[in-house]
Amino acid sequence: MAELILACDFGGTKLSAAVVEADALVDPQATWRGHLRRFSPSGASAQTDIETMLVMARELLGSERPSHIGISFGGPVDYKAGVVRLSHHVPGWQNVPIRQLFTDAFLSPVEVDNDANVAALGEWHFGAGRGVADLLYVTVSTGVGGGWILGGRPYRGATGMAGEIGHTVVDPSGPLCLCGKRGCVERLASGPYMAQDVAEARGLPLAQVSGKLVAEWAEAGEETAVAILERGAKSLGIGLGNAANLLNPSRTVLGGGVTKSGERWWQLVCQTAKETALPEVQFDIVPAQLGDDAPLWGAVALALL
Amino acid sequence: MAELILACDFGGTKLSAAVVEADALVDPQATWRGHLRRFSPSGASAQTDIETMLVMARELLGSERPSHIGISFGGPVDYKAGVVRLSHHVPGWQNVPIRQLFTDAFLSPVEVDNDANVAALGEWHFGAGRGVADLLYVTVSTGVGGGWILGGRPYRGATGMAGEIGHTVVDPSGPLCLCGKRGCVERLASGPYMAQDVAEARGLPLAQVSGKLVAEWAEAGEETAVAILERGAKSLGIGLGNAANLLNPSRTVLGGGVTKSGERWWQLVCQTAKETALPEVQFDIVPAQLGDDAPLWGAVALALL
Repeated sequence: MAELILACDFGGTKLSAAVVEADALVDPQATWRGHLRRFSPSGASAQTDIETMLVMARELLGSERPSHIGISFGGPVDYKAGVVRLSHHVPGWQNVPIRQLFTDAFLSPVEVDNDANVAALGEWHFGAGRGVADLLYVTVSTGVGGGWILGGRPYRGATGMAGEIGHTVVDPSGPLCLCGKRGCVERLASGPYMAQDVAEARGLPLAQVSGKLVAEWAEAGEETAVAILERGAKSLGIGLGNAANLLNPSRTVLGGGVTKSGERWWQLVCQTAKETALPEVQFDIVPAQLGDDAPLWGAVALALL
Repeated sequence: MAELILACDFGGTKLSAAVVEADALVDPQATWRGHLRRFSPSGASAQTDIETMLVMARELLGSERPSHIGISFGGPVDYKAGVVRLSHHVPGWQNVPIRQLFTDAFLSPVEVDNDANVAALGEWHFGAGRGVADLLYVTVSTGVGGGWILGGRPYRGATGMAGEIGHTVVDPSGPLCLCGKRGCVERLASGPYMAQDVAEARGLPLAQVSGKLVAEWAEAGEETAVAILERGAKSLGIGLGNAANLLNPSRTVLGGGVTKSGERWWQLVCQTAKETALPEVQFDIVPAQLGDDAPLWGAVALALL
């Protein structure tokens, strides 16, 4: 019987599970044997999310047992201990020993890490970062997070918190972020914050604006949207250039919904990043290839590493 | 006969060489068997500096041959190739194959790297970074540079340029740096730039002000010096906090002349760095222990790694 790898992704609002045959992974265009996605309902808790995920996994596996399990979690994780620290979206996730729970359920080895690190692994093994030894992956979405591959291996930092580019400060006189600082990359470049700034500037109810709409309005030439989107792109570019000066990666991979904001956005991000980096610090900036499946493919890589 | 390690340090204005017995290194308080320092005269070139260094080394070694040689260079180095890329201080250093020159001269294995990386190695092996697997070393002096130990090994980046914290941007509306950007850490926090800003603000000739004097005047309560020094400390703090968010090192070691600017400077640097880092990103900031000898001790570590 084929060896199966189970990949699980606990997002803030979505739960995804997929199964791939180990033999299929030699093909760079490997596809899932099965793939399920459910929305995490409002009122969900850690317990209901875990139960839903176990049901999805059993549905995909049938009577088979996975040889390895990889889990991506949308929040801080103690990678070494295999424990979720907390979720900013769903209650009840404080210090949940997720590795042990899944080991007990399937009697298989389990690895777990936060979604940015896992997505970085996914793009490195199966996507836009293949063959690159020194890689920064950044997702620009409802938040801004990142993960590192350094010297040909994942780098997580002393306590697993490396990659928090979203909360690097690029403008100390900028607007206030929920983290308490001013001018963080996330405060300036993430979708919801850009939507908030456009809504406030135009006197619109926040519910009527989204990051996607800001990009569409900017495309159509609406001045406030153009200004906010360009400020976001430049701020992200400074953050990426700073990261390049600090670590000298050879490639930066950008994923997440905000990266669909059009050519002008990409051009400003890349130009600002290159201007911020020293001339000797050269790197390319490329779009992620795996889309929403990056954490799942990363979970496969995590399980097998 | 004792096994000898030769350490050489090509600074911008000084040349240092030292010799240590390998057996002595087991003692954490190891001392040099011999140590020489010469100023690089004005009019010096790569050729005269290399000749002076070879003379110093032969003086220290007598008729003995070193088992290993480590070289620290004050400028960008291609570590893998063992080639100096250039010097910003002394002419003639473009693409000098320094490893080959010293291998030919002493028939011993030679390693060479830039001074920030080498000093980081020194503090890690022999100084304030002992026992720390994830370490950022930063020197705040005429420039601001840094070096990384990540996951228990030196990290140099894709092309050996990692650690350039001095040219990360912390205030895009700040003053213009020689690198072409505004508000780099080096532009705000290095000694000569702080001296320049105080001189301009007070209408003094630049030759009458130095980073050391700025610190002394600030200590005495002179308002301009206080403002410039505090701005520098806060800017450095943001840079260190950003680096901590990105890489999550467990310790940051600060060296260089500007770190002698007094308690208020240290307090502001540490406070700003901790405020900039996320609460989960914890690290300590400690003074370097090896002083001017950090690159020499680092060269010893480099030679033996």
